[in-house]
Amino acid sequence: MVECSYERMEDKIKTFSKFGDTGKGGITRFSLSEEAIAARCEFVKRMEAIGASIVTDDMANLYATIPGTEDLPAIFSGSHMDSVRQGGNYDGILGVLTAMEVAETIVKEKIPHKHPITVIVWTNEEGARFEPAMMSSGVICGKFDKAAMLASEAKDRKGYTFSQALEESGFKGEEKNRMNPAKTKALVELHIEQGPVLEAEGIDIGVVEGVCGMINYEFTFIGQAGHAGTTPMKYRKDALYAAVKTIQYLHDELDQLDSKLVYTTGKISAHPNIHTIIPDEVKFTLDARHQDPEVIKQVLTIIKKIPSVVEQCKVSYEEAWSRRTVSFTSKLVDYVEKSAREFGYSNRRIYSGPGHDAQFVIDLVPTTMIFVPSVGGHSHCEIEYTPVENCLKGANVLLHTILHIDKE
Amino acid sequence: MVECSYERMEDKIKTFSKFGDTGKGGITRFSLSEEAIAARCEFVKRMEAIGASIVTDDMANLYATIPGTEDLPAIFSGSHMDSVRQGGNYDGILGVLTAMEVAETIVKEKIPHKHPITVIVWTNEEGARFEPAMMSSGVICGKFDKAAMLASEAKDRKGYTFSQALEESGFKGEEKNRMNPAKTKALVELHIEQGPVLEAEGIDIGVVEGVCGMINYEFTFIGQAGHAGTTPMKYRKDALYAAVKTIQYLHDELDQLDSKLVYTTGKISAHPNIHTIIPDEVKFTLDARHQDPEVIKQVLTIIKKIPSVVEQCKVSYEEAWSRRTVSFTSKLVDYVEKSAREFGYSNRRIYSGPGHDAQFVIDLVPTTMIFVPSVGGHSHCEIEYTPVENCLKGANVLLHTILHIDKE
Repeated sequence: MVECSYERMEDKIKTFSKFGDTGKGGITRFSLSEEAIAARCEFVKRMEAIGASIVTDDMANLYATIPGTEDLPAIFSGSHMDSVRQGGNYDGILGVLTAMEVAETIVKEKIPHKHPITVIVWTNEEGARFEPAMMSSGVICGKFDKAAMLASEAKDRKGYTFSQALEESGFKGEEKNRMNPAKTKALVELHIEQGPVLEAEGIDIGVVEGVCGMINYEFTFIGQAGHAGTTPMKYRKDALYAAVKTIQYLHDELDQLDSKLVYTTGKISAHPNIHTIIPDEVKFTLDARHQDPEVIKQVLTIIKKIPSVVEQCKVSYEEAWSRRTVSFTSKLVDYVEKSAREFGYSNRRIYSGPGHDAQFVIDLVPTTMIFVPSVGGHSHCEIEYTPVENCLKGANVLLHTILHIDKE
Repeated sequence: MVECSYERMEDKIKTFSKFGDTGKGGITRFSLSEEAIAARCEFVKRMEAIGASIVTDDMANLYATIPGTEDLPAIFSGSHMDSVRQGGNYDGILGVLTAMEVAETIVKEKIPHKHPITVIVWTNEEGARFEPAMMSSGVICGKFDKAAMLASEAKDRKGYTFSQALEESGFKGEEKNRMNPAKTKALVELHIEQGPVLEAEGIDIGVVEGVCGMINYEFTFIGQAGHAGTTPMKYRKDALYAAVKTIQYLHDELDQLDSKLVYTTGKISAHPNIHTIIPDEVKFTLDARHQDPEVIKQVLTIIKKIPSVVEQCKVSYEEAWSRRTVSFTSKLVDYVEKSAREFGYSNRRIYSGPGHDAQFVIDLVPTTMIFVPSVGGHSHCEIEYTPVENCLKGANVLLHTILHIDKE
């Protein structure tokens, strides 16, 4: 059975790990940053070398296509190249590298295929430099309003808006180059699991059935600033203490729900954030995910029970965004499972906790995903790791899944 | 009895409130900022207009001296002009404005005085732009090492170090101009109470006996970053949740100590501080103050009881700084009380919770302070307010306290 190359896979991972290298085993490669653009240039160079034609669309999504033997819709595969701050060398980029390796294998081994094969790189999946996450697949798939994204005045640490970064990237192309559902047969995205399940169970391949539903809320607590040395405790309106009590309440209540629920208070800010001043405004975020919409409803009920005044501080909250549970195309899910079995790789069906560009694409074209294990379940951190062997197994399953689709 | 001028007092407060005006009733006037330098220039202009001679020392502390009739040590009065972010129009600056008004009254009314009278402006009392607070009085009085202050690589939001800001201020002078104990008879600093006591009790003047002891600790929690959507709750090392539990513990324990204890967790930071990532490092500060050293010891005992591991996160803490309770020169305290009584102003003895430059000066020269009420006890915020009437009463007490000292 035709397979991808271990050496080429390893070389790709090593090469791309240099773009944004933190020197501590990980990368910081924000979307459209200097480092991300260097990675895109390497991608273009390598894809052109195997005869791919390159285009970009108006959101700087990058498409590299090798022709098929017939004039048919293209089979897409790919992911994103951007990372969070001090992220790892596998989240996103591995989906691009395996798709590149699959295309290279098909070209080098002269594997016949009717459909064109397009390797896609989505712009700004992480949302770490510019919110929201999955911005560009969201725009292409009608989830986000392009004008709103370009109009956003949110700036990164260097004072750039998304719109400025896009203009200066050199990768902004034409709207007509966008992924076109009429000319797209299917999309398969490979990704690391970003969780501990596959590794814990000693499984090679995650056959992804869908993506868990989630909600993300931002809470705001308004108190009263005052000098740390004088305001008697009983007169205080300490916004941080109000936030602390609320986070504890959320843990106490949410821990009683289904054990597969995951929730995170990842972001907190205090104003004026000076050691000698009682904070008058504190914000924090809550992210909660579960594949069963009923459990998400229970989370909302718990949020709604938060009183409007805590520790004499005004409490408010709003939904930053939410997502319904997404199910992938069953026929494609079966192809992934079949391909894994053909290689004798251990596999199991699984739901994705994190969001992926693929969950937007499913609304337009048949779509599925392939997971490979994350050692220790780590992701979005520098120690994120998947051995080359596992990456290669993923690439092989991706290759054969694409060939199964091509045979239809 | 000779008095200061209501109109001039009001004019001074209004004029200086323009330097760093936030447009919301307060000011942001960080030390040595453009706004602070504009305020210094106004100070120099006005003091030269009444015949004062101006010098600055190597920490940019600013001295304006009107001569006495004899060659004697000078009587000092003044405070600071810098503010916290979105601070008020009275903290610090009122001590400068009342000293200016006292000097102007003495000159205009031709009040005979043997000793020179020096109005002093201390550099960087708040420590809001560059830590530590009371940096320059601390250097002059041997509390801080000047070389260390200048060597600090801590940068403000615009990327300035203290040393750069000092060089560019145009107010850096010579070390020989520092306040010299041998040539300084006494120092009297007027300040707003920054607390609710005087106003609550309907009292005009706080006769300050000393400054409360305090400790300031920084806590650090080290967990493990991971993706919000995948890491099962039981495997998490959430540094923010560990910090939340510890802040709750501190409240539970510290609330059982003497009710005059004040403590504040004013500053918190999370890393990487992204809504979809479990925080792997969280820091917060604890500030605790009480005039009785025994109570401060009890606070330390409570801190030391914090376990080294909370919610599977490593906990560490260190003292950022501390201060012993300071007592002012009793004879000067008596002069303040006597002057208040002479005017028939209601008054009471009180300890200061906040730190003031005067607490460093006491080690070198006889020193005391005068408090005026803060409406609502607010300070370090835009609604900080003291009516002109109260400011004038403070100026009058300052004037007569200085004249009592002069008669010795």
